[in-house]
Parts: sequence; structure tokens; C-alpha cells
Amino acid sequence: MPESPHDVHMSADAFRRHGRAVIDWIADYLENIEQHPVQSPVKPNHVRAQLPAHPPERGESFEAMLRDVNEIILPGLTHWQSPSFFGFFPANTSYPSILGELLSAGLGVQGMLWATSPACTELETHVLDWVVDLLDLPREFLSTSEGGGVIQDTASSATLCAMLAARECATGGATNDRGTDGTLTVYTSRQTHSSIEKAATIAGIGRVNLRLIEVDERFAMEPEKLRQAVRADRRAGKMPAFVCATVGTTSSNAIDPVRAIGEICREEKLWLHVDAAMSGTAALCPEFRHIHDGLELADSYCFNPHKWMFTNFDCDCFFVRDRAALVRALSILPEYLRNTATESGHVIDYRDWQIPLGRRFRALKLWFVIRHYGAEGLRELVREHLALAREFADWVRESKSYDLITDPPLNLVCLRHVEGDRRTRAILEAINDSGRAFLTHTKLNDRYVIRVSIGGTRTRRPHVEALRGQLSDLA
Amino acid sequence: MPESPHDVHMSADAFRRHGRAVIDWIADYLENIEQHPVQSPVKPNHVRAQLPAHPPERGESFEAMLRDVNEIILPGLTHWQSPSFFGFFPANTSYPSILGELLSAGLGVQGMLWATSPACTELETHVLDWVVDLLDLPREFLSTSEGGGVIQDTASSATLCAMLAARECATGGATNDRGTDGTLTVYTSRQTHSSIEKAATIAGIGRVNLRLIEVDERFAMEPEKLRQAVRADRRAGKMPAFVCATVGTTSSNAIDPVRAIGEICREEKLWLHVDAAMSGTAALCPEFRHIHDGLELADSYCFNPHKWMFTNFDCDCFFVRDRAALVRALSILPEYLRNTATESGHVIDYRDWQIPLGRRFRALKLWFVIRHYGAEGLRELVREHLALAREFADWVRESKSYDLITDPPLNLVCLRHVEGDRRTRAILEAINDSGRAFLTHTKLNDRYVIRVSIGGTRTRRPHVEALRGQLSDLA
Repeated sequence: MPESPHDVHMSADAFRRHGRAVIDWIADYLENIEQHPVQSPVKPNHVRAQLPAHPPERGESFEAMLRDVNEIILPGLTHWQSPSFFGFFPANTSYPSILGELLSAGLGVQGMLWATSPACTELETHVLDWVVDLLDLPREFLSTSEGGGVIQDTASSATLCAMLAARECATGGATNDRGTDGTLTVYTSRQTHSSIEKAATIAGIGRVNLRLIEVDERFAMEPEKLRQAVRADRRAGKMPAFVCATVGTTSSNAIDPVRAIGEICREEKLWLHVDAAMSGTAALCPEFRHIHDGLELADSYCFNPHKWMFTNFDCDCFFVRDRAALVRALSILPEYLRNTATESGHVIDYRDWQIPLGRRFRALKLWFVIRHYGAEGLRELVREHLALAREFADWVRESKSYDLITDPPLNLVCLRHVEGDRRTRAILEAINDSGRAFLTHTKLNDRYVIRVSIGGTRTRRPHVEALRGQLSDLA
Repeated sequence: MPESPHDVHMSADAFRRHGRAVIDWIADYLENIEQHPVQSPVKPNHVRAQLPAHPPERGESFEAMLRDVNEIILPGLTHWQSPSFFGFFPANTSYPSILGELLSAGLGVQGMLWATSPACTELETHVLDWVVDLLDLPREFLSTSEGGGVIQDTASSATLCAMLAARECATGGATNDRGTDGTLTVYTSRQTHSSIEKAATIAGIGRVNLRLIEVDERFAMEPEKLRQAVRADRRAGKMPAFVCATVGTTSSNAIDPVRAIGEICREEKLWLHVDAAMSGTAALCPEFRHIHDGLELADSYCFNPHKWMFTNFDCDCFFVRDRAALVRALSILPEYLRNTATESGHVIDYRDWQIPLGRRFRALKLWFVIRHYGAEGLRELVREHLALAREFADWVRESKSYDLITDPPLNLVCLRHVEGDRRTRAILEAINDSGRAFLTHTKLNDRYVIRVSIGGTRTRRPHVEALRGQLSDLA
């Protein structure tokens, strides 16, 4: 027998040593993250130009890799975990979550079927039931009812799954068999996330069959306009199927009136999906649960612990009221996946709840986060962000240089310089170029607006105050 | 100011301590993995029954969590990393890959746009170019050509993206706008993966418009049957759009004749996608590159380093010849994602290459794997698996009790007991119940067949020999 090639593997001892180095590296990185410019200053191709054109023929040392992470990768990063990152929505992480992801990578199990690793499925089902408790969601979303929850990668994927289930329900299962035919219509507000349009194109429904309903002065969907659109479509021979209401739009955090929309959906027999990707987390606190008023009328719901609930990407919690409808839309059972547990009908096979087949053990990190912080700890952190956003909005409101665009419902504050688009954009760019904070923009009523999204794991009062200082200086 | 709620976070020191514990836990787990039964013996609800019904109000210690991982989670796992796991296809991981995933979780950056973390995009583009080198794929898949590569979660998602691009190309972009109308048809073999059917339903093309082409005695697609089906569809007023060829089917590892299929696709102007999810890795070795013969005729291609290339799930490498076609199918640019780099046209924004918007830094783990092992190390490991599979197949061929179903092209061996389905199934169940190895089955020519998939990171000759011993004893 020749010597085994298995000595090309990293040994367990080397893994222990390098693992400690990476753990320390992460702790050092996060403790000292404010030393880096928040936005990477590199120009296109700067990172690639430093990398060898061809893969190595022989293995390299782990030390060499970690050195390249420091020297080549780090300067090319925009630091999402910086407490002065106020762009987009947060994608926050936390130490317990990192440990959960690490454990998941180490276990390397697949949760596509209950049978492929029962604990992977059961912990996920269980923790999603906990989330129903934590956010006081409708009991219809519990796995002990006809519904249940599942972890998706993103709200985009959750919304696509919801739309597919709606499509199948509306056509009695005909579209999976025969394809779509251009008659289905779907509805959301003008302010909704781009993922709804993307889902409508992917699902073969088409952009022309997506109705963007007008919004009120607070950028929330006008339910009567929804009703009119649905009825006009029915008169025109269309088949309305799906409505997406948003709790916390990306541009301004507008909260669609879920109850009024839900009542229309019930009357018109439409699937109602509620996308609360960022803002759902606020419902940890009883005083903010009004954002979900009427949610018991929804057929599906999602929010992302990977945005504002300290769980690293990817972790979207997606709930349905009728899991059979979802499974009918997404289930395919080839012979090589058949097994006794599936055939018993007593288990959940999450591959039928999502687009991909394979899935990793993402419940671990969410379990670790909820257990580490407890409901109480999570609420405290979220309340601090909400208070900081209110204070910051008050400052903008009183400022002579900036206009507050809308009273912020939660933790996103939208403002612009009184001199208009050009000046506002110049200020945003100056702040981003300074490396001291990072902001992104949107347009509201066709005007350029700075978004200040306050929800980072490490974002505290001094960081928001420093941003105020920069905004003042630049005004 | 009240005391900060930030002391509810895990401190950096505690993270260093717990991080070391988890690193050691993983090393201990993987070093001692053979002490666990490969297949979890638990019954439905066994795991859930041990978990508290409600989430904790107050935070808990990390020690308590790790104890529960040991006592509750571990017995509920089927150990995919066991060297005696021969089920499905491998989903192997390795120490360098685990460290890459850990680093990605610690950095917590988003790669949806180049601008949101340039290094995240550039390293991915670069490493995917390396993969073109490693597997000697067509130069058209290089990012320096009109094409390029991207990491998807799974081959299911890659195939869906390919089908959407094909749909848009065939209809001149009309389906994203107007939806599908039941005329598009798509083609694959009877032995193809279930994800193709799932993609056809998701994309609104419909099951009735999916043609399952007959296979030859080695379970590979018959190109002439494909040509006939395409022509019959055209005569019937259908619009053929997409063909998926499989390099290494799930049931028997059959390899479709890519060149012959590709020539038909060129003549008929059809998008050819090649799914080599498991088997593509064999092309690390020049002597196995014949599996990709004709790949230069393909429009897209995918394989999964998370199956057989020592990179933990999720990591599918997806390549296209014409990235503009893919982006046309999947791009949506709302105001809040606009930025100077995107508008310059000089950067890749990977959100336009996939279904979801957000994406984590998965290139790190693939980079670590390629650098740790080097091309040489990867080839050695793959060659050992291939040699073990050949030896095992020889043993089956010579056995009086078992029939070899087909000469294994690579590392999957299919066999059945000479006494037929019932006996074969009983043997498989006895082995799985023993906990000493794990096997899954399929049906080929309507007969129940045991699949022995040899590709685990830690699978070596003694593990295959032990399986032979069990099979002998049970025969």
C-alpha cells in the first residue's frame, strides 16, 4: 500500500491551532473595527490585481492565507459590522451567532429531509415556534397548527416561495403542471422591495402583471387603491392571486396597513404575504407590536434575524398559515429521496419548503442567539436602537439645514439637506469618503434622500452623535 | 445615562474562550466521529420533546448550550462527515473550509454589490477563474471573457438561474415582462435530478412542457431522441428553449454525451446547461476530463465543491458563457442600490447573477481549500476515492451474491442482491440500522438498487473494506 494521501489534510492539532488564531483574529477585528474606514476605498480590480493568476499546484500554509486576509482582503472590505455603518439595512452578527455558524460548518450535516439529520429539522421547527412566541405572531404560524416556520436564506427567497404557493392555490395547482399563461396578477405597493418584482419575473407571472399600488403621504399602501386594482383586473379577465404588504419598506420604513389589506385579501380570496424583513424584529417589544396589527389575516410572513436580530446572514424566518399549500407548490419526490419517515407523514421535510434541495443547519445560530440574549436582552438592544433613532430624528427635525422626510416609524431616519438633491448627495459622499461613517440613499417623491439606518450590533449613542457632528459640520 | 444594555453582549474575552471550546469540540467530534452510529436512531419528535416549550426570558450560559448540543442535538444527527457515510452524494467539509466559513461569519459583510464589499466580489470572481484552470473548463467561462463564474448555494439554484436566462433568450426578454404562456419547452433525461422539474415549475414553464428524454443502457441521454423531441415540439408550435445535460446523474452517475447534445443545441439554438454537481470534481484529474468532452458547446455549467471538493455546504460554482444573458434575466436596480461603481459598468454585481439579493462571503472557504490542498492535494484525494470505487466495483462484479448494475464511471457504485428488491432493501436497512455505515437507494429499470457513494473527506480503504464485510455477512 502506498502512503495515504490523507496527510494532505490539515491535522486536528493544526486545526486547533489555526482555529484559535481565527477566533482571536475575529475578536481583534471586531474590537478594533473602528480603526478601519467604514467604506472600502479601493478601486475596481485593486484586490484581484494582488492575487496570483493561477491556483497553487502545491498546498500553502494557513499562516500565508491569514496574512493575505490581512493585507489583501481587509482593505477591500466595507465594514458592515462597524458601529458607524448606517447604510442599507443592518446585516448584523454577534459572537453567539458566529459560534453557531462555526458549529454548523463543523458538523457538516444536511437538513433537506427529516431523515437526513432529525435534529437539524426538529431544532429548526422548535426555534421557529419560539420566534412566534418572541414576536407574539399569530398562533396559526406555529408548527403545532396547520402552519409552521422555516429558515430561508433571504426574504427574497421567502417571498418567491410565498408567490409560488399563491400561484398554485389560485390555479388549483394548474400552473406547476401547465405553466403560467399571463392571466395571474400580483399586487404590492410602489415602495416595496425589488424582490417582489424579481419574484414575479422568476415565477413566469411577468412585470406587466405586477400592480404597484399607490401609497399615502407616509409611503404606505392605500388599501382602497388595492381593492380598485383587484376589481379592475377581475373585470378585465385577469386572475388576482397574491398581495405583498410590507412592514418597514426599504426606502423609508413605511408600514403598510396590514389589517385593511388583509380584509380585502379575505374578501377577494387572495394570498397575503407580509414582508417585515428588517422591521419585524421590533415586535420583540410589546410597545411596537402594532406594526403587526392584522397579521392574523396573512397567509405568510417573513422577517430576517440576519438584519436586526444579531444573527449572521443568512437567516430569514418564513412562516405560513397552511403548510400543505406551500408543500404542494414546491414538493417533488424522486426515488432516491424516498424514506420511511417521509412516507409516515409524521415529519417535516424542509426541502419541500424552499427552492434549493440541500440545506445547512442554520437553526443552531438562531438558537444560540435567543438563548444567549434571552428575550429580555434582545428587547433591551432593540429598544436602545429605537431610542437612538428617535433622538436622531428629533435632532433632524430641529435642524435648520436638514429636513426630516417622514416621522420615522422605527429605526430608519430619512433626511435631506434643505438646498436639495445635489447638496444632499455631496454630503453623503463626503461622509462615505471620510471613512468615519457609511450611509446610503434613496429617492422619495423623486427627491434624493439620505437614509440613516440604526441597528448595528455595536452601534451606540457615541456613534450616532459622531454622525450628527459630521452632518452638522458639512451643513 | 442609564447603564448600557450592551453588557448583554458576549464579551470579546468570553468569545475567545467559547470559541476555543467550539474549535476543540469540532476537532474532537471529527476525530471521534466513528464512535457514533452513522444514521441517527431517533424517532420523530425525540429531539423536540427535550427542548423547553418557550424561549428563555433571560440569557443563558454558553456552557449550557454546548451541553445541550452534546446531549440533545448530537444523538439526533446523521453523521454526514463519518467516513462510513456512503449515502446520497457526499457533502464533505474539511478543516480549512470550516475556518473559511468561520472567518466569513466573523466578518459579516454582504457581497450583493461590488460596492458593498469589493473584496467579497473580487475574490469570488478570481477564485472562480482559478476553478476554470483547475478543472480545465472552457476559457469562455473565465471572467476575462464574456462569461464568468459565481457561487450559488446549490445546483438547484444554479439550474433555475440557467433556465431563467434561457427563457429570456428564447423569448427576446419577453417573459420577464409578460410572463410565460405555455409554449416554452425544456429538455433533460429521464435520469436527471429532480431540481430540473422543480425549476420548470418555478419558472412558470410547467411540468407538461418538460421533456424527459430516453436514456441508453448506461442511463445516459440519447441525443437522437433529444433531436426528435425538439423537432416534434417545433412542428407542434412549441418553442424549445433549454436543455440540461447531466454529468453524473444522482441515481447511477451516468454521464450524458455533452458533445453530441451540444451540437444539437447549437443547430437548434437552444441553451445548454450542464449539471455536474457531484462529478465535476473528477475533472481535477486530467485522466477524467473526458467527462466534460464537448463542454465548450455549453452555455452554462455547474458543479458543487460542497459535494466532493472538501468545501462545506453551501458552495456551488456556476459558470456562464454570456454573463449579459444571465444579468438580463435577473437584474433589477432600485434606487436604493444605485451607486457609482455599478453605473461605471466596470464591476460585477453578483446580486444580478442569483435569485436572492443578499449574499455572504463564501469565496473565502473555497480559497482556503484550494490554497491548503493545492491542485496536487485535491487530485490525490479524488484519485484515492476513484480507486476505492473501482476496487469496490470489482469486488461486486466478482461476488456471487450481488450484481453490479452498471460499470461505475466514477465514484458511485450501484449494486443489488441477486435475490431481488426485497432482499436488497432488507440488507440496506440492516446496514443502516447497525449504525456502522449509511447507504441510500434508488431504482434503476424499476429495480431497487443500493448506491454506494465514495467521496467523504475521511473515507479510506478500511471503511470501504468494512462495508464489503458487512455486505458479505448479510448476503
